[in-house]
Amino acid sequence: MTTRPPAEVGMALEEVDTPALLVDLDAFEANLEQMAQEVAAAGVRLRPHAKMHKCAVIGLKQMALGAVGLCCQKVSEAEAMVMGGIPDVLVSNQVVGAPKLKRLAALAREARIGVCVDDADNTDSVSAAAVDFGAELDVLIEIDVGMGRCGVEAGEPALALARHIDRAPNLNFAGLQAYQGRAQHIRDFSERRAAIEAAAEAAAHAKALIEGDGIECRTITGAGTGTYRFEAASGVYDELQAGSYAFMDGDYARNQDESGGPFQDYRHALFVYATVMSCPTTERAVCDAGLKASSVDCGLPTVVEADLEAEYLGASDEHGLLGLQPSNRPPRIGDKIRLIPGHCDPTVNMYDWYVGVRGGRVETVWPIAARGAIL
Amino acid sequence: MTTRPPAEVGMALEEVDTPALLVDLDAFEANLEQMAQEVAAAGVRLRPHAKMHKCAVIGLKQMALGAVGLCCQKVSEAEAMVMGGIPDVLVSNQVVGAPKLKRLAALAREARIGVCVDDADNTDSVSAAAVDFGAELDVLIEIDVGMGRCGVEAGEPALALARHIDRAPNLNFAGLQAYQGRAQHIRDFSERRAAIEAAAEAAAHAKALIEGDGIECRTITGAGTGTYRFEAASGVYDELQAGSYAFMDGDYARNQDESGGPFQDYRHALFVYATVMSCPTTERAVCDAGLKASSVDCGLPTVVEADLEAEYLGASDEHGLLGLQPSNRPPRIGDKIRLIPGHCDPTVNMYDWYVGVRGGRVETVWPIAARGAIL
Repeated sequence: MTTRPPAEVGMALEEVDTPALLVDLDAFEANLEQMAQEVAAAGVRLRPHAKMHKCAVIGLKQMALGAVGLCCQKVSEAEAMVMGGIPDVLVSNQVVGAPKLKRLAALAREARIGVCVDDADNTDSVSAAAVDFGAELDVLIEIDVGMGRCGVEAGEPALALARHIDRAPNLNFAGLQAYQGRAQHIRDFSERRAAIEAAAEAAAHAKALIEGDGIECRTITGAGTGTYRFEAASGVYDELQAGSYAFMDGDYARNQDESGGPFQDYRHALFVYATVMSCPTTERAVCDAGLKASSVDCGLPTVVEADLEAEYLGASDEHGLLGLQPSNRPPRIGDKIRLIPGHCDPTVNMYDWYVGVRGGRVETVWPIAARGAIL
Repeated sequence: MTTRPPAEVGMALEEVDTPALLVDLDAFEANLEQMAQEVAAAGVRLRPHAKMHKCAVIGLKQMALGAVGLCCQKVSEAEAMVMGGIPDVLVSNQVVGAPKLKRLAALAREARIGVCVDDADNTDSVSAAAVDFGAELDVLIEIDVGMGRCGVEAGEPALALARHIDRAPNLNFAGLQAYQGRAQHIRDFSERRAAIEAAAEAAAHAKALIEGDGIECRTITGAGTGTYRFEAASGVYDELQAGSYAFMDGDYARNQDESGGPFQDYRHALFVYATVMSCPTTERAVCDAGLKASSVDCGLPTVVEADLEAEYLGASDEHGLLGLQPSNRPPRIGDKIRLIPGHCDPTVNMYDWYVGVRGGRVETVWPIAARGAIL
């Protein structure tokens, strides 16, 4: 159900009710600018992943800086983005089952829509839905470039599927989805680079096979915030799908950059805002942001307040346990604190509103229109 | 945002779109009956926790079987329950900050509302809000009975706070919140029992101190699905707050019962329904339920399909990786499977609808009115 917004435009930050999802607008805009400059310099296209932000308002800002469209993982996410004004969406995932395929095909009457396949029968189902709605769909083959999840092998199976798509009514073979998800969080820089070099090699091999058969392979797309510079430099990838760069999260910041230091080229722009609700001892305080306010699948959130030395020690459903340094100023009940979530995507998925803040004041409240869009 | 329901009444189970949250109505009703009988036999009251199900429809069913009201953790949850017809709600948690306290006090004009405190200043704020709205609030002291989260010590600090509440305008001192959350998932039966015996002793001590001072201490409340039989048998607890018993989850089923076997006195009634979306190899399949469909903070979900030997090996945002036994019938793309979530509460919090199923057919679709209610 849609919840009430925790803030109103014009409020001081300290007045925002908690838990709330804050966007530091200066940091967010700087992140968008930096990525736009990097992809322009590299001569590749950017198609940021909306599974992270789930918000068409943010997608439009990314497109205004040059992104060619967005990626989504679910038809319902794509619907929310198209309804919010995004004209070009790639569902970078398989879509299975008649109800979803109908909605996908119908959506292709309203916007340019792409989808991924890794199976011939599923391709026929996509084609039948497109024919039924008189729609045209771009179709990419997902190849497994080392992630071990979905996708066909980047050799003869990819070629066979390309031929199949090429013959299927109302489908346009558009290229290869070559996302190496497992590489995104390899901490070591060289290992991470090696994983993407292998992925690029596999993708180039599949493309050569397919084009050798006379089928044009327009686009090789993939990459995430952990690896996009390698894909951009590969000479193989045409399009990058990074999403988390817009906000950053605790997990990506634990990757190592080329010098061996933490990857800090993007600023933390997303925070869970929380209130201290109990101070039972000098070593312990409790805030109101637990498992239903910050996803812990990639680690606990981190406390970031200049004058509070506190460690987030554990999450229960609605509580976050904070360990305190007795030497420091202790927090008081009612104090508000910012947390960096361990993993943006599932954290954002718990909220209906972003509270955009600049200079200590609420400047905007954006609806997270694709919150809960899993169908 | 509110999402479309994944099912319509009358559909066959196999037609339900995925991911969806299924309630096996036979199992669910049996669970509600069993707990109602147990608390009646023990001579204690049941006040089930709505932070788990977040659904007033379910709360009304619990009350029809004798529950005296519900617990909530958040004011917004309590609002959703009262709007849905629940006349008596205990917010078993501290409420901090003027916006929430206003709503709490206003809600007490519409229903009987209780709240917990562990701080004198916060008590004054609760009292001021109650006075402002001309409302009366029941106030319980949260005592720390071994959880190490919120709560005052169950000795002189509890007595001092009871005196403070007793003097505060528009507040009725109603008793002690004595929840031992840490004990809920202690696997060993005897250790779990010992933790609750210690909690009951601490609560009885605090009550004796307070009543020795001439302040009536009507209720000692607490307990969860992992321990409620110990609290019921303690002679100390008057009210039980178990919630997960209605659905059960993977984590509670891993507790040991008295015989050393798994705790299976309640049936799994909650399932994440998922579709197989990719079958890349004979050892591996991928379903469409990942981190945004099942919370993994208490372990991965478990596959339960009689004719499918598959293990849920890992979750990414929108994918669940299934390891297959090559000796068995392999799944096919489009097959639908049921998963038991590791932890009900944060899983339910991702969905807007329960799909109630009986005999393979959708019988009802209930709104999860307090989904996302964290304010």
